[in-house]
Amino acid sequence: MTRRDLRPLFDPRSVAIIGASEDPAKWGNRLSLGALRGAHRRAVYLVNRNGGEILGERAYQSLAELPEAPELVAVTVPAAGFEDAVDAALEAGARAIVGISAGFGELGAEGRAREQTVAERVRTAGAVLLGPNCLGVFDAAAELDLGWSEFPAGEIGLISQSGNLALELALLAADYGLGFSRFASLGNQADVDVAELVGWFAGHEGTKVIALYCEDFRDGRAFATAAQAAVEAGKPVLLLAVGASEVSVRAARSHTGALVSDLAAVDAACRAAGIQRIATPRELVDLAQACLARNLPRGRRVAVVGDGGGHGVIAADVVVSLGLEVPPLSPELASRVASELPPTASTRNPIDFAGGGEEGFWTFERVTGIVLASGEFDAMLLTGYFGGYSDFSDEFRELERAVADGMARAASDSGRPLVVQSMYPASPSVVALREGGVPAYREIEAAARAIAWLLARHEQRPSGIPALPAPAPDRITESGYLEARDLIARAGVPFTASQRVETLEEARAAAAEIGYPVVLKALGLLHKSDAGGVALGIEDAAALDSSFSELATRLSPEAYSVERMAALDGGAELIVGCRRDARFGPVTLVGVGGIYAEILRDLAVALAPIDDATAEALLRSLRGAPLLLGARGREPLDIGAAARVAATLSQLAAAHPEIAEIEINPLLVTPEGALALDARLVLDEKGEDGAR
Amino acid sequence: MTRRDLRPLFDPRSVAIIGASEDPAKWGNRLSLGALRGAHRRAVYLVNRNGGEILGERAYQSLAELPEAPELVAVTVPAAGFEDAVDAALEAGARAIVGISAGFGELGAEGRAREQTVAERVRTAGAVLLGPNCLGVFDAAAELDLGWSEFPAGEIGLISQSGNLALELALLAADYGLGFSRFASLGNQADVDVAELVGWFAGHEGTKVIALYCEDFRDGRAFATAAQAAVEAGKPVLLLAVGASEVSVRAARSHTGALVSDLAAVDAACRAAGIQRIATPRELVDLAQACLARNLPRGRRVAVVGDGGGHGVIAADVVVSLGLEVPPLSPELASRVASELPPTASTRNPIDFAGGGEEGFWTFERVTGIVLASGEFDAMLLTGYFGGYSDFSDEFRELERAVADGMARAASDSGRPLVVQSMYPASPSVVALREGGVPAYREIEAAARAIAWLLARHEQRPSGIPALPAPAPDRITESGYLEARDLIARAGVPFTASQRVETLEEARAAAAEIGYPVVLKALGLLHKSDAGGVALGIEDAAALDSSFSELATRLSPEAYSVERMAALDGGAELIVGCRRDARFGPVTLVGVGGIYAEILRDLAVALAPIDDATAEALLRSLRGAPLLLGARGREPLDIGAAARVAATLSQLAAAHPEIAEIEINPLLVTPEGALALDARLVLDEKGEDGAR
Repeated sequence: MTRRDLRPLFDPRSVAIIGASEDPAKWGNRLSLGALRGAHRRAVYLVNRNGGEILGERAYQSLAELPEAPELVAVTVPAAGFEDAVDAALEAGARAIVGISAGFGELGAEGRAREQTVAERVRTAGAVLLGPNCLGVFDAAAELDLGWSEFPAGEIGLISQSGNLALELALLAADYGLGFSRFASLGNQADVDVAELVGWFAGHEGTKVIALYCEDFRDGRAFATAAQAAVEAGKPVLLLAVGASEVSVRAARSHTGALVSDLAAVDAACRAAGIQRIATPRELVDLAQACLARNLPRGRRVAVVGDGGGHGVIAADVVVSLGLEVPPLSPELASRVASELPPTASTRNPIDFAGGGEEGFWTFERVTGIVLASGEFDAMLLTGYFGGYSDFSDEFRELERAVADGMARAASDSGRPLVVQSMYPASPSVVALREGGVPAYREIEAAARAIAWLLARHEQRPSGIPALPAPAPDRITESGYLEARDLIARAGVPFTASQRVETLEEARAAAAEIGYPVVLKALGLLHKSDAGGVALGIEDAAALDSSFSELATRLSPEAYSVERMAALDGGAELIVGCRRDARFGPVTLVGVGGIYAEILRDLAVALAPIDDATAEALLRSLRGAPLLLGARGREPLDIGAAARVAATLSQLAAAHPEIAEIEINPLLVTPEGALALDARLVLDEKGEDGAR
Repeated sequence: MTRRDLRPLFDPRSVAIIGASEDPAKWGNRLSLGALRGAHRRAVYLVNRNGGEILGERAYQSLAELPEAPELVAVTVPAAGFEDAVDAALEAGARAIVGISAGFGELGAEGRAREQTVAERVRTAGAVLLGPNCLGVFDAAAELDLGWSEFPAGEIGLISQSGNLALELALLAADYGLGFSRFASLGNQADVDVAELVGWFAGHEGTKVIALYCEDFRDGRAFATAAQAAVEAGKPVLLLAVGASEVSVRAARSHTGALVSDLAAVDAACRAAGIQRIATPRELVDLAQACLARNLPRGRRVAVVGDGGGHGVIAADVVVSLGLEVPPLSPELASRVASELPPTASTRNPIDFAGGGEEGFWTFERVTGIVLASGEFDAMLLTGYFGGYSDFSDEFRELERAVADGMARAASDSGRPLVVQSMYPASPSVVALREGGVPAYREIEAAARAIAWLLARHEQRPSGIPALPAPAPDRITESGYLEARDLIARAGVPFTASQRVETLEEARAAAAEIGYPVVLKALGLLHKSDAGGVALGIEDAAALDSSFSELATRLSPEAYSVERMAALDGGAELIVGCRRDARFGPVTLVGVGGIYAEILRDLAVALAPIDDATAEALLRSLRGAPLLLGARGREPLDIGAAARVAATLSQLAAAHPEIAEIEINPLLVTPEGALALDARLVLDEKGEDGAR
């Protein structure tokens, strides 16, 4: 889709409200009140078929009566009148329509079809439609306020699928003096979708951070592409996404299917685009504040500074629990810092002023400058009472504010971030810190997390959104075990030797040819292991006979696979797979396999297809990576071979949209290579999973 | 120590302030102002050697001038005058002394000796001393306020080693309308220590929760014993402890020594006493609020309820991330709930009112009652807008408050907890919820964590503080590898066969007798493996010759141990050990060993000695427990044998105070038993580690 002009949605030259109302219980009242607040800079027309006066203004009976074409039309009539209202708006020359009216796609397929028809008419007319079932828009600079009077102005661009959440974010942001440059309520995304809005916000000068609450990503790859462009343009994208508790809902037919939840697919997109995903409104606002910082840490070394008491040690513990480091100062730096402090002060790390700040406020500025300029630390965290002196007297307030300005300058000059936790987060000096680019929080965990997030921003290398190849012409139609093996083997993945057999005689001959020990697998079962359809470690012909007859009696399989039993010693088992997500397309998974899969719950995901290098980076990102890399005297395993298998599988899934799930579990990695010991393939059967 | 009467410290009949001052910059001014606030119920005497008037009151030049014996004397003179002031107080008949004066134990050994002498004199006189170097006391019911005017009254008893932290806790608690029944600033604990204060607070009617910030636990077992008694008396003990970032500071000589940090020892005490340990002031206050709940959840099933928007799904994700469950409602319950809600509402879980609460406030009460009384859930979490309706009108405020009362009643009647997250946490209806025993938070993560904490309280079974046996008469003096093996083997722990040898000929003979494969270990090195002093998997005499000569050339050890090489297949490696902590005495550690130790960082600790059952419970609490219990078709290992080894080692360490560190690493656990493959012993050498 070529980029459309959304300016009329956020900064229209004129606005009309269809469904304007005098009744405070109606959204049309709120919209009208909001719109009228911008009447000093644009024409505002209230429309109600009853005419008369609303809020002291003339109410037009229809758009046809307006003296000019309204550039933006907000529609808040009942669903039955929605299409007519939109048609009237387009006829009147509207360039943008905000569909407040509900009762469409959110109710099911019929409503979805209705809103699609409307959206098509809007697009044909060259206009844009936000919603329906949305809660309006807000633009601080344009003074456009359709229903959101409680929004403080600021630099966060907000796109949300929930009005209440937008309100909660506004309330939380206000604590920090943060606010919103823009807000768009997503609604049903019949026309303008989250990807298009992200793209538009990325180009908005007044927006420094893009915050999102989204349940439905529509074209997930278009969204990720737009987000990556925003991130690369220097506008962090913060995503509040849900679905962690939804895993159990979907019936998955492979381990990969179960492990790659909808949220895991979102995570793959975040990894590709450099989006920071968070789980709660509080985290979103805390992270938005972190974006105030003018510099990013370039390493994990944090200097923790407190003015007495337990704050420093508590903060140091929290910092370390987030994977950051609190290393001691060099003797030289310690002695320079000590020269600014009373003799009882500590200049290890945490640095404890021991009341030295209370004795002379400028100590805060001087120590900030010395510590951050030293190059021994990547960030400084100040914790405790600073901010509280302002309460004592006007003189103290002036002084503390000046010191705060000095600290912010010292941080800025050093090229390294200062982050503050203050018991008095709303004090004038703490406000001054924020104005100077110093994130300042009330809670120590928030301040420490801010540093961790800023470091994550420094370290993140968006891997980019991979292009999907054209579908391969040879559509896959068979998903049995042997067909899956063949498909994957043909793509270049090594398997253990195997032969399909139907009778005991054939099994004996196959085992003799392959060589003992062997494995005997019953065919025709999706979950062979769970059904007890796999006999491992068959050492000789007698054992083969007994395993064969046991499987035959219990499961009556149509056939069997006799396979060479691989020696697991010194190797590691991985799970490697792909699932096609309805929104984000094929997603690759790598994880530690075997019994450790349950204990470690250790997996990494990426949008497919991936190349060998990306696959290896994924493997190295696992907590269990030491298993592969040869820690504690173990021989390093062939991580390159494992990466090649993951990449191959991802390319296969990307080229075959009919693959719903595909996996190798386990993939045995040894010092000499990687060997697939099992395979599973699930094809997309229409009707069972219509979304794909 | 028999229990002493601390009443004079918190509710004295009269108070004298030595070092009273007119100067607002001095603590003596703050103390005097505070003490005078209680002048309507007790005599308050200000003492300053200059006499005259202070704060409009007569200033006595010495205690000798007072018309009566002052029951409590606060001393805030410079350190040089401290002993004289205490002596004067005792002579005047004081029963309790609050030592504000600083400059003693916090500066080092000399100050420690000084304050010990003072404390001894106080004890001899039958009085008690808080401090020195403390910041006073506060008791809401007794209206005793020595310096803490900013403390709101409430039900939290606070004991803190940091004044600033106490202030921060007060500021955070005020958000929730929570306050303090009592506060004692610990100071240097020269006489009254944390254990004694916990014991005294446990008996205080006005104190419902005991909150602690403590850096120095003194007699750790006495503290744990006092805390356990408080917990068993129904007063939760919340401990803000530090030290997580201190691990690297202490030089440890075994893996156990490194893994059992000071904080891990605290954790062992918490496990024994049923203390809940938290990491930040915010967590402490959030948890203190959770203690408002009148009932504990008895399982993990949480009903999540929101009135529209994304709140419910976000909350469900957070709840699940804490290890709780959000199962669906039964069809019967779903239909009962649905009958209270609009047709667009969701009655899965989360339950989404879809605006049904806005349409009729009583819906909140009815659904709370139906859901909690159903027995299908162990707790309910309400999230979102509730509380916000109060802003609309007086009528709405009245109504919402009445509904809040009804919800609290419904929760109380059901015997199950309701926990609330509200965008308007200070609204009158949310205050009413708290008054009715419903914890109500601003942040969803805090509300969800409260449920997890309440469940932990239900599930916690304090294992109790084990008694330490009398020191064994046969003091251990040798800590070499073979001596450690012998010591542990004599206690009943099975080891692999081994022989000490000095020459290659002896090694050959030993190996022939023991049987190949063997292990050859160089003796006389503390970290044999790290130094490359262990040759594994020697299959025959030729391999033995070459390993022997390699070790001899590189390390020139005095001797060697030839040992039977155990087969690791099908087994699991554990680490089992004990470290003697300076405050808490011997602490037992169990953990997953081998390479997984690094990946899982999976260990559990307990105060030693432990019995077999406690040891097995520790092993089962490991994340890696499935390795032992036989998950995914593996044969279960002999967890009982492993538990016996851990218990034995703990009893050995408890009986031998000269053992600083002792460990078996690895302990091989197989289906048939447990076998020690290595041993390490570190004795307490005075001078190197004087605290022990």
